[in-house]
Amino acid sequence: MSMSAGSHPFDQATMLVSVAENRYGGRITPAYANMVGPFGGVIAAAMLNGVLSHPARQGDPVAMTVNFAGPLTYEPFELQVRLVRANRSNQHWLLELEQAGLVAASASAILATRQQSWAATELDCPAVAQADELEVWAASAGPAWIKRYQFRFVHGALTLSGQPGPDSESLLWVRDAPERPVDFLSLLALSDVFFPRIFVRQQQMCPAGTVAMTTHFHADAATLAANGSRPLLARARAQCFNRNYFDQRAELWSEGGVLLASSSQMVYFKA
Amino acid sequence: MSMSAGSHPFDQATMLVSVAENRYGGRITPAYANMVGPFGGVIAAAMLNGVLSHPARQGDPVAMTVNFAGPLTYEPFELQVRLVRANRSNQHWLLELEQAGLVAASASAILATRQQSWAATELDCPAVAQADELEVWAASAGPAWIKRYQFRFVHGALTLSGQPGPDSESLLWVRDAPERPVDFLSLLALSDVFFPRIFVRQQQMCPAGTVAMTTHFHADAATLAANGSRPLLARARAQCFNRNYFDQRAELWSEGGVLLASSSQMVYFKA
Repeated sequence: MSMSAGSHPFDQATMLVSVAENRYGGRITPAYANMVGPFGGVIAAAMLNGVLSHPARQGDPVAMTVNFAGPLTYEPFELQVRLVRANRSNQHWLLELEQAGLVAASASAILATRQQSWAATELDCPAVAQADELEVWAASAGPAWIKRYQFRFVHGALTLSGQPGPDSESLLWVRDAPERPVDFLSLLALSDVFFPRIFVRQQQMCPAGTVAMTTHFHADAATLAANGSRPLLARARAQCFNRNYFDQRAELWSEGGVLLASSSQMVYFKA
Repeated sequence: MSMSAGSHPFDQATMLVSVAENRYGGRITPAYANMVGPFGGVIAAAMLNGVLSHPARQGDPVAMTVNFAGPLTYEPFELQVRLVRANRSNQHWLLELEQAGLVAASASAILATRQQSWAATELDCPAVAQADELEVWAASAGPAWIKRYQFRFVHGALTLSGQPGPDSESLLWVRDAPERPVDFLSLLALSDVFFPRIFVRQQQMCPAGTVAMTTHFHADAATLAANGSRPLLARARAQCFNRNYFDQRAELWSEGGVLLASSSQMVYFKA
């Protein structure tokens, strides 16, 4: 059974095939190649696809944590998906992605059947120029996954000038390239779309890799559907670089200023 | 084998006994009772104790995510601890806490053997009065765990006045009560020490419970040791309340203004 039949590169990269109960096969395509192995966002999305495609699925994602335990190649992987506990409103899932007999990534995902409630957003959406008014960022080089997104920076672009900036914040409009309507899988991938904050802060590259990423989903499916393939406003910054790890906080808003997701990471670096 | 022999209530509540390879027994004491079952921070700390006490442990925590899947009682629980993957600098652990044959909580923890590196903190430590200059918060009522901490609010205390505030932020000094030198276990518990943000925003109570919590450890063991039992400056706020879930971002600083940990949660609520 094919879990995702779209012809978009993102759908091809995150497609799973059921191979046994609670077990899927997949293969990240080189279209999403990063420096060492595939772009983490697409690995996370492929894992979440194992939950959202599962026959026992109830509800939509509210929280997901992915731990990147070891390198992954473009060869086939196997994904084990386990529903650990459920009640009327929540499902708790645990996932392990294996390749060559080793766990390359583990994850937990919480789905919820969301009810109506009192609502408020306390985090202000940055006031910026519309995406169409900003230039598309033309990466001179870099790994393939960068070409799978269209970036329009308000500030905090990667210049590699070697001139350190005052902080590590980036603010940008971003969407899939080619266009693709945003859904939970692509929103999860987009929550990892930021270059390592140490690159932006120092404006030079160094060894760096995310060890853990947590994404919180504030939007429901209808809100995502309403966004279609319009670009999202995305912001990321580090809070602390210390003893070869730094964190990254990030947010993703719709064009209309709705907070769709927020995320945090811990990232290994050597500098 | 007893994993923690201290006589402090926190050590008693998080103590584990090895019952088999990769398997521990424990029991949260009613000293940390919350509204329904034990305070989540102490559950998280007991789970992390299973990693930090494990004979294969290498390094100190950099990231931990705990998923609260179901209610826990003050009866014994069993904790399964599994080292999923390791390299020279990282260990990836997965944990499941079971009671009455059901998984009540799962977790992932990443340990790292930290190296020296370039360092910077971008998040400003709030400028506030010293702890000693502020009044100790006297809870008129509430569950037992509140008495296990000493709170001194700068702002955002829980008044239950029924008068909604403009936002959900709390800023406070907090330490264990009685005093206890901070370590990775108590720092993890402290990252969950904040009342549900919906209570603070609305200044009234409603059903609420954390479904997932992620804590990032910025400080090393020496930095924690240097803090001793001095209070930590703690800040928490929600970014978004929507369709019966809200998030919470929080930070914990030493008295000297060093960012020790940051965390994020997703919390179920009904209001």
